[in-house]
Amino acid sequence: MTDRTDVTAKTALTPKTHTVPPAKFSHGVRKGNILQVAGQVGFLPAEEGKPPTPAGPTLREQTLQTLANVKSILEEGGATWDDVMMIRVYLTDVDHFAEMNAIYNEYFEEQHLTAPPAARTTVYVGLPAGLLIEIDALAVLG
Amino acid sequence: MTDRTDVTAKTALTPKTHTVPPAKFSHGVRKGNILQVAGQVGFLPAEEGKPPTPAGPTLREQTLQTLANVKSILEEGGATWDDVMMIRVYLTDVDHFAEMNAIYNEYFEEQHLTAPPAARTTVYVGLPAGLLIEIDALAVLG
Amino acid sequence: MTDRTDVTAKTALTPKTHTVPPAKFSHGVRKGNILQVAGQVGFLPAEEGKPPTPAGPTLREQTLQTLANVKSILEEGGATWDDVMMIRVYLTDVDHFAEMNAIYNEYFEEQHLTAPPAARTTVYVGLPAGLLIEIDALAVLG
Repeated sequence: MTDRTDVTAKTALTPKTHTVPPAKFSHGVRKGNILQVAGQVGFLPAEEGKPPTPAGPTLREQTLQTLANVKSILEEGGATWDDVMMIRVYLTDVDHFAEMNAIYNEYFEEQHLTAPPAARTTVYVGLPAGLLIEIDALAVLG
Repeated sequence: MTDRTDVTAKTALTPKTHTVPPAKFSHGVRKGNILQVAGQVGFLPAEEGKPPTPAGPTLREQTLQTLANVKSILEEGGATWDDVMMIRVYLTDVDHFAEMNAIYNEYFEEQHLTAPPAARTTVYVGLPAGLLIEIDALAVLG
Repeated sequence: MTDRTDVTAKTALTPKTHTVPPAKFSHGVRKGNILQVAGQVGFLPAEEGKPPTPAGPTLREQTLQTLANVKSILEEGGATWDDVMMIRVYLTDVDHFAEMNAIYNEYFEEQHLTAPPAARTTVYVGLPAGLLIEIDALAVLG
């Protein structure tokens, strides 16, 4: 985490593993005790000279990578999953709901949360070709 | 509302009337003065041994039940509609916009808000079969 | 900005240029240091006796007008783009992503931000006929 002398300043959270955003936005920002994670998808850690590449074609691969990408940003801002208030899950196919829930539950059991799990909304939208899931998150620290 | 000795701790908001979430998330969470309500749909109060059941097939029945479900979570966290900053409405059909607005206005007139109404975003997405509306909400207390 | 003696009260943010919302919601609300902008679309400044009218049929016209409409609400609440933590972009067509990003970047370069840019999520949804983009925003002041 970046050293911040002014805790109320807005700070960009940019894990080294992350690909450059396709536009003028931050992967995450923190200001005071509020931390917002931008919509993450299942891209593998960035490699120089390679375009963003999904972890794989399956919902499982993309969901786990997406959650890992969200977690990196939380950690970059000094937060953990325990601080997360809201998780927004965007799927492309209603038929993926049960499978995503199973992967989601399995993932969070391994995270050993000590606080209650975040609230969540899941809706079904369009996403760029090849992407099956997108997730963003709002955290409150402290 | 749960008795909280530590007001800054993250607390799950779980009204007794609510069905068990289909995954490891909370119907609502509060931490400090921030309260987040998860995406609610028009399910009737839970009955043991019965699967989650929508209030009915119509937009009116589902919208009113969904709003009641959001309200239960707000109350569980010590909040009211007056504390709500943002309401996100997910509809499945653009043609439902005018009818939803009429029901929404009627509902909120009966709530006798003393503060200005929340901001709102309405978009049209896919939802599981039989569900016409989903709503989540962000509140700031105090 | 409205004069507020009680800074913790919830205040509606209603720029004079804005059309009347189609239902009982606020274009924006501020409470304490949290400011939420409702979903804005590319409607031109309101003219009495005229229905809400998009700035034009193109993505460029609508995106720039939508961003201007968000900005008016931020300013009404005493905020600037620098205070914005999260921008949610709703497009109707995945093929608009690259063009929207170009317009978005160009717009924000002209805003001369002094803080890091906001986080962002872009998803593809249905919107009312004729509208190509909707944007909402969450800001934290102070």
